[in-house]
Amino acid sequence: MTQLEAARKGIITEEMKKVAVKEEIDLEELRRRISEGTVIIPINKRRKWREPIAIGKGLSTKVNANIGTSSDYCNYDEELLKMKVAVEAGADSVMDLSTGGDLDYIRRLILKECQVMVGTVPIYQAAIEWKRKGKPFVTIEKEFLFDIIRKHAEDGVDFITVHCGVTLESMERMEREGRVLGVVSRGGAFIVSWMRYNKKENPLFEYYDELLDIAKEYDLVLSLGDGFRPGSVVDATDRAQIQELIILGELVQRAWEKGVQVMVEGPGHVPLNQIEANILLQKRLCHNAPFYVLGPLVTDSAPGYDHIVSAIGGALAAWYGADFLCYVTPSEHLRLPTVDDVREGVIAARIAAHAADIAKGIKRVIERDRSMSMARWNLDWETQFKLAIDPVKAKKMREERIPSEEDVCTMCGEYCAIKMVRG
Amino acid sequence: MTQLEAARKGIITEEMKKVAVKEEIDLEELRRRISEGTVIIPINKRRKWREPIAIGKGLSTKVNANIGTSSDYCNYDEELLKMKVAVEAGADSVMDLSTGGDLDYIRRLILKECQVMVGTVPIYQAAIEWKRKGKPFVTIEKEFLFDIIRKHAEDGVDFITVHCGVTLESMERMEREGRVLGVVSRGGAFIVSWMRYNKKENPLFEYYDELLDIAKEYDLVLSLGDGFRPGSVVDATDRAQIQELIILGELVQRAWEKGVQVMVEGPGHVPLNQIEANILLQKRLCHNAPFYVLGPLVTDSAPGYDHIVSAIGGALAAWYGADFLCYVTPSEHLRLPTVDDVREGVIAARIAAHAADIAKGIKRVIERDRSMSMARWNLDWETQFKLAIDPVKAKKMREERIPSEEDVCTMCGEYCAIKMVRG
Repeated sequence: MTQLEAARKGIITEEMKKVAVKEEIDLEELRRRISEGTVIIPINKRRKWREPIAIGKGLSTKVNANIGTSSDYCNYDEELLKMKVAVEAGADSVMDLSTGGDLDYIRRLILKECQVMVGTVPIYQAAIEWKRKGKPFVTIEKEFLFDIIRKHAEDGVDFITVHCGVTLESMERMEREGRVLGVVSRGGAFIVSWMRYNKKENPLFEYYDELLDIAKEYDLVLSLGDGFRPGSVVDATDRAQIQELIILGELVQRAWEKGVQVMVEGPGHVPLNQIEANILLQKRLCHNAPFYVLGPLVTDSAPGYDHIVSAIGGALAAWYGADFLCYVTPSEHLRLPTVDDVREGVIAARIAAHAADIAKGIKRVIERDRSMSMARWNLDWETQFKLAIDPVKAKKMREERIPSEEDVCTMCGEYCAIKMVRG
Repeated sequence: MTQLEAARKGIITEEMKKVAVKEEIDLEELRRRISEGTVIIPINKRRKWREPIAIGKGLSTKVNANIGTSSDYCNYDEELLKMKVAVEAGADSVMDLSTGGDLDYIRRLILKECQVMVGTVPIYQAAIEWKRKGKPFVTIEKEFLFDIIRKHAEDGVDFITVHCGVTLESMERMEREGRVLGVVSRGGAFIVSWMRYNKKENPLFEYYDELLDIAKEYDLVLSLGDGFRPGSVVDATDRAQIQELIILGELVQRAWEKGVQVMVEGPGHVPLNQIEANILLQKRLCHNAPFYVLGPLVTDSAPGYDHIVSAIGGALAAWYGADFLCYVTPSEHLRLPTVDDVREGVIAARIAAHAADIAKGIKRVIERDRSMSMARWNLDWETQFKLAIDPVKAKKMREERIPSEEDVCTMCGEYCAIKMVRG
């Protein structure tokens, strides 16, 4: 049984128990939300040895870090290190997006070592290995793609991105309206190219029922990808994006009918003033399925700082109801991220998630800020470091400039406002 | 005449002309907004040699960088370098908040070298120099304080922060309700300590008319400081803060009556869900006077990353109507910022301002993102760097990991979505 099927039958799983304690939520209420699909617990039946993590309605906002080799840069140890650094920095999941080297090897290595959720995008491997056979990826056969999806499920992957909403219908809408930046999703680009070449429907859409069967067998969560996510703020919320979202909404219901856990991926590059509408649309069109957003990036003009751009959009999105934030690193749009970029990206996304959880009124999150503020009032630096999202960096920064009086910092020195007023 | 008085008389000043061109706004409409006080041009009569910059309704969001020595760390060259780095990174103003060394010397040095607006907080110098005479600052005499304010005006400072709303009334409200973090504004702390010791009203409030006379003489903008800004998200929007804001609103009107340009400073530490209300309150209570916000910081828990925390809050605040963002550096709450911190702080604040200006629909800002997106579609890296908020960093990051094909980057290598879809 999947977590969804269990919940529907009134069964409380071990995973639900652990999640309820961690999230400080009533167990019966959690079961109810899982049964209606508004909360998911992505945990492949073959990876039940790790701590379960839930995503969705009323829970704290979760953070994902993308890692993985590329065709231009392939170093297994470095990707494994990125995974460890991401988890240490507080990521709730990592996605292995490797496109270089031995893809089975790196995926299995990460699955073995990783204590949190692991997601993948199987179409990458399918396209790459097809190409390695000397055939253009646009000629890829459906069976080959589905075999790889099954392999990921068997390996224990907890969730996979499948771009099922990139259909002939949504593609036509995109072409008819036009866009500054056509397709920026790699999976979306594979499928668009395939559909154009073959003049046939996306197999992930056409054979969606088969996909559901695989997902159900392993309790693999389907993360319905947004192949038409806007890659520019001027393309945001256009017809292609919304057409795809409508289709994804329908696919959510079909997943639920089969007892398969599902979430929906969202944009992308979106200006500040369109984020609320985007969240509302997803929640309404997808009947409150958990929403997993990449960004949103609120401007295109800050390469080198897209972790900040994305923290702005992500905080807003999560406050309005997005459940799961995919981090963006400072390297976005420029290069494969370094280990440091991964750390910076996770921290920025956690800040966004934390700020949103305060705004959503999650008590234990607000209490952390209260404790931090009390430590500030008490000029108690050790407690401040302990409560910091990144204790190491906070401590290091203060110690790089030693104040003359131990209880203040070099910003204000003897004119510390708190010290003056405390008297 | 001040810019405000000129505008009221229907006079178009040279500064208004330059601002109208830069902001792409109708000159007569600009004059009208200056006449009603919703737009200010902070430019001291003695600094008319520099480019004028305007702040307020319908204009692009401006960014300020705080620099200055502290009692624990005093290096004039480094502060001058910070000023230059801040301006290069796009700051529209710098505030010299020096509290260490020869305060006249460093202020005059900055005023001489700086091409953008310069602000100060004269009460710092007053308190420090009084203390240097061997007297506790709580015994400072009003005349001494006002002489220093006049000196700043004579030196050519464009705007000064004056904490006129820290009154016996607002202090009592704070004490009655209680707070986790009492007073975190240095200026506010000086005045609270002074009022408590002397059991007398704040001289900046009591002799506000004299302050207005000095301001009028030099067309010095008064930036009405928020001494009771919350220093913790759990203290946000409390009675002390709003009481002070009500008083500041009254002082705005008194400034306008005398023909003095004025803006209002705002919080501080504010959760995401309270930012819109804070902006609305300021705009309503202060009759749409320009709003200058510090942050807002949307969580207390991320020391070392407060530039990101503040970019989140600042973007939201500016979108809702804040006109002027004071940057926050990664060093906030930890130490006096380094030169690198200053650069990072300015860039983060500019990202916030830029994202807000897109959301507000400022055309030339949106066009920049459109051009960036077109350059991405064209895989035209030189144009991407040119349009980046920080071209140097963007270029450096890409070049640190050289792709095998010149037109893509190492993130996706040959599987670049854009390249696939362009065909």
